[in-house]
Amino acid sequence: MPEFEILFQSKKSEARLGRIHTPHGIVETPAFIFCGTKANVKGVTMSQVEEAGSQIVLANTYHLMLQPGSQLIRDAGGLHKFVGWNKPMFTDSGGFQVFSLGHSSVASEIKGARQIESKKTLLKITENGAQFKSYIDGKTVMLTPELSIKIQMDLGADIIVCFDECAPYHTSKLYTACAMERSKRWANRCLKTFKSQDDGKQMLLAVIQGGIYEDLREESVRFANENNFIGGSLGATRSQMYEVVEMIGKMLDRTRYVHLLGIGGIEDIFNGVKCGMDTFDCVSPTRIARHGVAIVKKKHLPDNKQKHLNLSKSIFEQDFSAISPDCDCYTCKNFSRAYIHHLIKAKEILAGTLISIHNIRTMNRLMEDIRAHLAKDTLEIAQKEWCV
Amino acid sequence: MPEFEILFQSKKSEARLGRIHTPHGIVETPAFIFCGTKANVKGVTMSQVEEAGSQIVLANTYHLMLQPGSQLIRDAGGLHKFVGWNKPMFTDSGGFQVFSLGHSSVASEIKGARQIESKKTLLKITENGAQFKSYIDGKTVMLTPELSIKIQMDLGADIIVCFDECAPYHTSKLYTACAMERSKRWANRCLKTFKSQDDGKQMLLAVIQGGIYEDLREESVRFANENNFIGGSLGATRSQMYEVVEMIGKMLDRTRYVHLLGIGGIEDIFNGVKCGMDTFDCVSPTRIARHGVAIVKKKHLPDNKQKHLNLSKSIFEQDFSAISPDCDCYTCKNFSRAYIHHLIKAKEILAGTLISIHNIRTMNRLMEDIRAHLAKDTLEIAQKEWCV
Repeated sequence: MPEFEILFQSKKSEARLGRIHTPHGIVETPAFIFCGTKANVKGVTMSQVEEAGSQIVLANTYHLMLQPGSQLIRDAGGLHKFVGWNKPMFTDSGGFQVFSLGHSSVASEIKGARQIESKKTLLKITENGAQFKSYIDGKTVMLTPELSIKIQMDLGADIIVCFDECAPYHTSKLYTACAMERSKRWANRCLKTFKSQDDGKQMLLAVIQGGIYEDLREESVRFANENNFIGGSLGATRSQMYEVVEMIGKMLDRTRYVHLLGIGGIEDIFNGVKCGMDTFDCVSPTRIARHGVAIVKKKHLPDNKQKHLNLSKSIFEQDFSAISPDCDCYTCKNFSRAYIHHLIKAKEILAGTLISIHNIRTMNRLMEDIRAHLAKDTLEIAQKEWCV
Repeated sequence: MPEFEILFQSKKSEARLGRIHTPHGIVETPAFIFCGTKANVKGVTMSQVEEAGSQIVLANTYHLMLQPGSQLIRDAGGLHKFVGWNKPMFTDSGGFQVFSLGHSSVASEIKGARQIESKKTLLKITENGAQFKSYIDGKTVMLTPELSIKIQMDLGADIIVCFDECAPYHTSKLYTACAMERSKRWANRCLKTFKSQDDGKQMLLAVIQGGIYEDLREESVRFANENNFIGGSLGATRSQMYEVVEMIGKMLDRTRYVHLLGIGGIEDIFNGVKCGMDTFDCVSPTRIARHGVAIVKKKHLPDNKQKHLNLSKSIFEQDFSAISPDCDCYTCKNFSRAYIHHLIKAKEILAGTLISIHNIRTMNRLMEDIRAHLAKDTLEIAQKEWCV
């Protein structure tokens, strides 16, 4: 049943308006997908996520297979019922976490973050799958393409993703090529498992691999295009992300839905949309909120040095204005920067909740603006409004 | 403008139905007042507090005078606007915290808790007021009756309280008598300050002191009855609370509104209502929620050993029922005990939020049941429903 419909194609770029039809409703694209890693969007209720205009939430296979386990969620009636969200959902394959936590570098590389020391948990990668240590109890766990799909079918999200090897970007071309070839073989096993039990309610996405190497990306895209996936995801590196995304956007079968995994910066989203990406996800809107940081349009920042509004700073102590003057979220309609600054200083968790509500609404407003302008093929006006 | 109206007087006890009229609306009594200590009810938004059927919220003068300061809240347009709550509000005088944190024993005694070690911050008590060290920056602060009233007038809650000396219960009768006499002199100063600036929008409550000593309590009640207070509060000790509350309930001017400070156990509330108490407050509904504990009727507990439902326990791992089968709160309508157990194990703050919503709704349902049965003079049926 899940299918992708293109409503409008820009004449100026690869950008398009679309609709993903799922058993839990429609996702109007371009859209932002909010991360509900451990079966909840951190610090907010699903009704707050919905009130902020969200269309779709993502949960992580890696975290949920370890706790509470996909069988328990299946017994509970599936992910939607368990988490109290009756709209479309997305699960990733678990691959990114297995490899990023395992190599302890993929994630920080992709996110452009500084190297963070963490315990390497990836034990070995074989043709069968990836063996890793559980971060909860240290037990050895084997994740295979078949198991990842079985788990994702137990969870029952509307959009699910093939299990792939997410190779670190600093590896050799040879290693990247091997990982990409293995990801193709794994994708075939995923597709086989999926087809054998497909009840027509889920959509399986391929993942494009190949690192920064054009010929490898091309081969990975060719594979995805030729096989029976409904959409595709990109594992991207930040430093060369724009080039990679542009290159792949052009090569991919343009009738299919494309998700850009793990990217959520406002400028990155404009770039992605122009390259033909349909959906985006990132933990940042709620993560930075818990650190007192609110997302606003560039023109609403006190100065050019900041990227976001850090409400823990003392300049907001007596600022009785809303976080953003043009925002219609619950937080902006009811509370001042001074109040939220007070909550941060008082170490009240409500600060994180209120800023999360604002940041979620802001990402949705961004996507609403993008869709509204795209319909008139004036995306550059929205970009100017948000980024200048 | 604030006034108290009695709608119905039970023939079986001192229990009555009433209405407190305030500039921010009516409080139907008996009612539970939710604690928003540092200008927020911990872990929930004011809209969640309201959706759970709450009528009135309390904020603490002691905490707010230290941070962000009452002047800032006045500049922000007052407490209601600052915290985003447009219904009735209550502030205490700061006295309880100054003395309970200061003696490091009053609070635990009153709450019946085990002795908790804490730093003594009360520096000295003079006729002028109480000097203490700020828990935020260690600075010396002097709180006087005049200042407490000025702060509470800046904050602008609908119901405010006289600054009194809350003497520890283990002190001698002589000390208790001296504290009670001083509290009377302080109350006169509070009343004088209040009257000099009264804009008719606030209601000032006297506090009944005198510890466990009947003659002292009697004198304290006589003072409150003879002076122009609109209501009164009781500082109660748990061990002999029932006797004290009963004794005072009978002595107090029965045309006035009476609040029982800091008491919120379900059986304690039934006892208080029968002694003629109109409102109650306690931090426990949201405090225990943050520790994974939900309030339910006794018959919904798995066994008789527990007082509440501790959702962190593994027996709830696969329990797909709601926290309480008869509850109409957002949490019970949308989530299972298994889901909340998962959130607790995953250390997600949403667990505390969802249980807080349930506990707030439960306390409001309790009070709704009490009022409904009181109207038919069948309070004992409500008590059986909740406590057996």
